[in-house]
Amino acid sequence: MMSLFLKVVSVDEARETIRRIAPTTGSEEIAFEEAVGRALAGPILSAEDIPGFDRSIKDGYAVVAADTATATESVPVALRCVGRIAMGRGKPGSILQGSCAYIPTGAQLPAGADAVVMAEYCEEIGEDVLVKKPVAPGENMLTRDEDYAAGDAIFAPGRVLSPQDIGVLAALGVTRVAVRKKPVIGIISTGIEIVPVESNPGIGEVRDVNTYLCETFAGQEGAVPKKYGTVKDDAQALTALLDRAVADGCDAVFISGGSSKDERDVTAQAVAAVGEVLIHGIALAPGKPTIIGRAGRTAIIGIPGHPAATYVGLTVLGRELIHAMLGVTSFREKKALARLTENVHSEKGREEYLRVRLEDGRAVPLFGKSGLLNTIVQSDGLVCIPAGQEGYEAGDTVEVALW
Amino acid sequence: MMSLFLKVVSVDEARETIRRIAPTTGSEEIAFEEAVGRALAGPILSAEDIPGFDRSIKDGYAVVAADTATATESVPVALRCVGRIAMGRGKPGSILQGSCAYIPTGAQLPAGADAVVMAEYCEEIGEDVLVKKPVAPGENMLTRDEDYAAGDAIFAPGRVLSPQDIGVLAALGVTRVAVRKKPVIGIISTGIEIVPVESNPGIGEVRDVNTYLCETFAGQEGAVPKKYGTVKDDAQALTALLDRAVADGCDAVFISGGSSKDERDVTAQAVAAVGEVLIHGIALAPGKPTIIGRAGRTAIIGIPGHPAATYVGLTVLGRELIHAMLGVTSFREKKALARLTENVHSEKGREEYLRVRLEDGRAVPLFGKSGLLNTIVQSDGLVCIPAGQEGYEAGDTVEVALW
Repeated sequence: MMSLFLKVVSVDEARETIRRIAPTTGSEEIAFEEAVGRALAGPILSAEDIPGFDRSIKDGYAVVAADTATATESVPVALRCVGRIAMGRGKPGSILQGSCAYIPTGAQLPAGADAVVMAEYCEEIGEDVLVKKPVAPGENMLTRDEDYAAGDAIFAPGRVLSPQDIGVLAALGVTRVAVRKKPVIGIISTGIEIVPVESNPGIGEVRDVNTYLCETFAGQEGAVPKKYGTVKDDAQALTALLDRAVADGCDAVFISGGSSKDERDVTAQAVAAVGEVLIHGIALAPGKPTIIGRAGRTAIIGIPGHPAATYVGLTVLGRELIHAMLGVTSFREKKALARLTENVHSEKGREEYLRVRLEDGRAVPLFGKSGLLNTIVQSDGLVCIPAGQEGYEAGDTVEVALW
Repeated sequence: MMSLFLKVVSVDEARETIRRIAPTTGSEEIAFEEAVGRALAGPILSAEDIPGFDRSIKDGYAVVAADTATATESVPVALRCVGRIAMGRGKPGSILQGSCAYIPTGAQLPAGADAVVMAEYCEEIGEDVLVKKPVAPGENMLTRDEDYAAGDAIFAPGRVLSPQDIGVLAALGVTRVAVRKKPVIGIISTGIEIVPVESNPGIGEVRDVNTYLCETFAGQEGAVPKKYGTVKDDAQALTALLDRAVADGCDAVFISGGSSKDERDVTAQAVAAVGEVLIHGIALAPGKPTIIGRAGRTAIIGIPGHPAATYVGLTVLGRELIHAMLGVTSFREKKALARLTENVHSEKGREEYLRVRLEDGRAVPLFGKSGLLNTIVQSDGLVCIPAGQEGYEAGDTVEVALW
């Protein structure tokens, strides 16, 4: 049996291990309008030009731009108006130099036209239109492939789709998309003092918080949480639960809790019993006694039980695992820049995550103990003090990764 | 019949009108773990102290802090160890001055103890423990109400619940919560050139994009979108659809499109036919020809049809309406500070929303036409140039409201 107590590794090394062991989820085809927040399983290519025809984006007159070069308010250019283009299906005809056609926003330009003069700079006089302002070729119109061209790679695999992206899929006529299946994450809470959320805690007992932190975080990040309940500090009981989660085919398991040293050992024992412990201890505060392991293809993270440590573990490591399982390539953390209101110190050699509240562009550190829930509720996000640094000074501009 | 062409109003005035006409949705009780992203219908009060007992947050020894005042590595203080406290249910006994008890993380402190010395600063010698470091009262422990005290107002009505908040509800034993019902928003697209997303556009036709922008945005922001389909520029057909959405009890309707002047008039006519037009024209770019109206209790926003204008309208006005219907009080836009890479100009007197892409802390304006989808896909958010300002200069630090 390999040792359960390995050397403490850096956060980067822990993330690398997570990416290495993350099982890739399969793909499934779903309706495009259900795909917001889902990760693409393959690339999206454009099968056609968008908008697909030269298209006016103003109400006005389709012209040959060169005809308008000398047009001014006082000396307008007169063009013969050869027609009025209708919206929608139908050929818009054509114009020659010296002529123009009325065109509404959204309509197709007639052949020969290469720009649109806005109606407010034109005056109809009998069969002529007086143009009072020059336009450049392409002005007030879209060329047929100005948005997307046939064959363009529109979205890469791993992109998490936004409402805007769904709009592009609509434009392309892509009504079904292949996305990655949501990973199933088993959730287990441990702790002798933990009682179910519906019960009244006795003396020395507290309700199970971590199951719900893990469950709702996993759901928010695009996974399907599956609750396996709570266990006391009993290695056999935890092993049995973990075994069941693995047998059920969970892609990953989050085990939270085990706040005393004995309980933490229980988690490591259970992971070793069903598979292997890869990391036991990360240079991360809060969250040093984190365990990373696997059983078959199931990735396992053992997260410390203090709520603030649990939540830091979920955002720093849990999200990395979910993204790796989904193959997410487009994730960008939402960050704010802010000035620290106080000096903050950190032990060199570990990454420290500071909860901060944002107040008018200032970052106020919340130094509360990691056993408190209120610090993760009252904070707006985390400031990371890198391992190589001893802290920041009041007035320093820092990046806040927003919750 | 009132005039359909009212004076152009400021964005602030438009938002005020939206808040005034927004119908409040009712409340419903749901399981707390389903409540992420939902807005609270009432306050959450704490019925009890959390954690509920004086609780150790380290493995070590429960002590009377005053006993340790002189403790040092070279001259430790000897305390009589009177017991070992177990986790979970059960009375932890008590200690007197001069004594201590072993305590694991998470366990209840014995009566008389007011601090915990970490195990690494202690040494057991027979029945005594040598303490090598002083602790202050309250150190390495939580007092019984340090997280939340009985009677505390925990969350105000209108708070949108996060995973962390769900953790607090678990700690409090609040397993059911009253949240605001999701508003139902009817979605209608107009435009003569619009064809269904499943079809192959003919010459001069484009697929319906805006239905899906509106639908997925509404869903993402906590509403239930209800699609009513598309109409050509036919006031009667649009009036009939709008009438149906109002009769169905939609809390709001988003009508998008009508990009040419004639089509926009059709939207105003239809709104006037079923109710009243309150605003027709907002000092907003892109998005000036926006319509705000109502029919009975149903709020109506007519959003311009160019995709970029549609999406700006949704984020600037649509979100305001959804939040007002839900009574959201806790919303904070995710913003990044960045330096503009170019001068940007704006017409004084209107709020201009600039799409920008973020690159290494710099904000790169995307000047593409508002008829293009690719600018809303390639941008990371919006920079607002206020109505009183003529623009920003390259190098200015601006706030980017992230999508």
